[in-house]
Amino acid sequence: VRTSDVFELLRDGRPRTRAQLADATGLARSTVGARLEALLRLGLVTPYGGGTSTGGRPPSLFALNPTARVVAAVDLGATHAVAAVTDLSGTILAHRGERLDIAQGPGVVLDWVERTVRDLLRRARRPQGDLAAVGIGVPGPVEHSTGRPINPPIMPGWDRYDVAGHLGRELGVPVLVDNDVNIMALGERSTHLAEVDDLVFIKVATGIGAGIITGGRLQRGAQGTAGDLGHVRVSHAGGVICRCGNEGCLEAIAAGPAVAQRLRADGLPAQDTQAVVDLVRGGNVAALREVRQAGRDLGEVVATMINLINPSVVVIGGLLAGAGEHLLAGIREVVYQRSLPLATEHLRIVASRAADRAGVLGASVMAVEHVLSPEAIDAAAADSAAGATPTAVAVTADG
Amino acid sequence: VRTSDVFELLRDGRPRTRAQLADATGLARSTVGARLEALLRLGLVTPYGGGTSTGGRPPSLFALNPTARVVAAVDLGATHAVAAVTDLSGTILAHRGERLDIAQGPGVVLDWVERTVRDLLRRARRPQGDLAAVGIGVPGPVEHSTGRPINPPIMPGWDRYDVAGHLGRELGVPVLVDNDVNIMALGERSTHLAEVDDLVFIKVATGIGAGIITGGRLQRGAQGTAGDLGHVRVSHAGGVICRCGNEGCLEAIAAGPAVAQRLRADGLPAQDTQAVVDLVRGGNVAALREVRQAGRDLGEVVATMINLINPSVVVIGGLLAGAGEHLLAGIREVVYQRSLPLATEHLRIVASRAADRAGVLGASVMAVEHVLSPEAIDAAAADSAAGATPTAVAVTADG
Repeated sequence: VRTSDVFELLRDGRPRTRAQLADATGLARSTVGARLEALLRLGLVTPYGGGTSTGGRPPSLFALNPTARVVAAVDLGATHAVAAVTDLSGTILAHRGERLDIAQGPGVVLDWVERTVRDLLRRARRPQGDLAAVGIGVPGPVEHSTGRPINPPIMPGWDRYDVAGHLGRELGVPVLVDNDVNIMALGERSTHLAEVDDLVFIKVATGIGAGIITGGRLQRGAQGTAGDLGHVRVSHAGGVICRCGNEGCLEAIAAGPAVAQRLRADGLPAQDTQAVVDLVRGGNVAALREVRQAGRDLGEVVATMINLINPSVVVIGGLLAGAGEHLLAGIREVVYQRSLPLATEHLRIVASRAADRAGVLGASVMAVEHVLSPEAIDAAAADSAAGATPTAVAVTADG
Repeated sequence: VRTSDVFELLRDGRPRTRAQLADATGLARSTVGARLEALLRLGLVTPYGGGTSTGGRPPSLFALNPTARVVAAVDLGATHAVAAVTDLSGTILAHRGERLDIAQGPGVVLDWVERTVRDLLRRARRPQGDLAAVGIGVPGPVEHSTGRPINPPIMPGWDRYDVAGHLGRELGVPVLVDNDVNIMALGERSTHLAEVDDLVFIKVATGIGAGIITGGRLQRGAQGTAGDLGHVRVSHAGGVICRCGNEGCLEAIAAGPAVAQRLRADGLPAQDTQAVVDLVRGGNVAALREVRQAGRDLGEVVATMINLINPSVVVIGGLLAGAGEHLLAGIREVVYQRSLPLATEHLRIVASRAADRAGVLGASVMAVEHVLSPEAIDAAAADSAAGATPTAVAVTADG
């Protein structure tokens, strides 16, 4: 019998009595009492109603305490960084976004992360000891099990750098690292698609990538490179050479820089992806046309993805999705023409609603999942029993 | 405390003592004894050593009894059917393969399935009451939750037919239905890739489809159409119209019938896919060349699939895979040129070893997974306690 057996029941946030917990687990009341005591000592469970008891009788309801601990959530982009401190329900307590160039390398960037996390903890008025884990997304492929970026094309100096180890030493907590698009998929789902088990999140910005959730679980693939949409070959991009060295990659014709370049060739002031978005918002016809065509090119690969993965929702995010319906219209145009009717019958293709918070929210989900996993709960309970700091709330077996 | 909590520990087949089970579950010996009694009554667990005890002392070791029950496993193709009866470890006790045209409709085909299952049970010398479930694969998309084929293109008369309900009524057991390629993926994995969590099985025959296993689980997608490789558009098949109505589908240029047609146009006797395989085996140069080109066309889509899913093994099966290394060579040629180095670094592309048994073996895996699932174990234990047929093996709490 593990402490996590009792905790798993309480994770949904609904308060329960000791008797209900005993019934649901089939455990003896005394066993449930001991496990509850461990969870109360950890602070992860709290007497429901705040613990104001009368006449010395212990309170009879217990619930998850999402404010017990906090996690730090960090979303690193190519030229931008967002960090937040959230509680265990994903509520943001403090956050900060800044321009930060990932190409400055792990030393500079992780220093910023460490300083910012400490500062956000202060602003959230939470002591360092309340921090339970860090979740961090980076713009490149990551070996999730070790927390190291692997050959990331736009992150010079980061190849196989021990991000998890570095931050773990500085902040003294477990650090979970993943690709930025994977955490965006988690963040989008937690925000308003919690009931959707098969979901693809596509980021269209400087690069193009996808986070894939199937059967309710994030799919990273064997090496953590699943969802690499950007380097799929598209049929009518024959001559274009991609920065990866191959020919005709989707990214080379449909990502922000490619669209910007074509507009510049037309004499328009499109120095980067944001400028493209601004032109579209300003109603520039050439920009509208190019973004819609980028959508069609994307649609070719999205149609293939739908055939292969059969999601029920495709979410389009990233900077170029800020161009509004034009990108989505191009995608839909091709997808509904190309994909099988059964696969698109109930399919929704939607713009990201979590938008520029998708990353931090997903990083928070990833960190919280770790903190509340059965393994972590049981390890914490064991540590706590060994260390044995006395608890203010006593739980008796017959309460 | 559920019976399945004890059973889950015994599923690996290793014998354990009552004390070991109590330690591992944290349950009281008396509780473990009661759960064991239920499992012994169901026959799913047996005293290790065959139950020959001396001096009235109950035997001290217990193990999974894979011979306790049997399942029927059926693989229906377009023109061929294979059925088997296996025990709970997937060992085939009796099997039969026949030419059978799926287009004859559910009445004729499911009659054959029912008669064949009864006959195989007799040949395996197992009473009808030993049958615990049926697993069945069909050559088209299936709504797995209801066991109904949905708009299957080569199965006239089967659309939304209640396959699971029909066979369940006739045979009196749960019936699991899935797409044939999905069960082939399960069968291939169970045969010799048990340690591989990210695996794609591609069937190349009259049609082209894939079964996708990621994170150790079969991925069916939101509507059960995941893995539909055959109707992905390939770049240089512009003018060819597919039977699905779209242009340039992979299947229209790389499946068996397309290859056969091109060889017939060259004056060769290639009436069907098997004839193509025979020509290749006979060393016909034109047939070799066409199969290799089919491999290259396949490779285009497989490269995309690898970018999106990042499997560690791609298995090529189906009738055209019988053409040997030529098909695989074409696939490899394109994949290693197109896919990202990180995704192909540890990738293996191999021919199916389970081959024409992949389907029945996978159908058996699907049926056994259901029979041994915690939900089924607990339901069976409850039924058995209510029905209460007396058991020959008594288990005492202090044994």
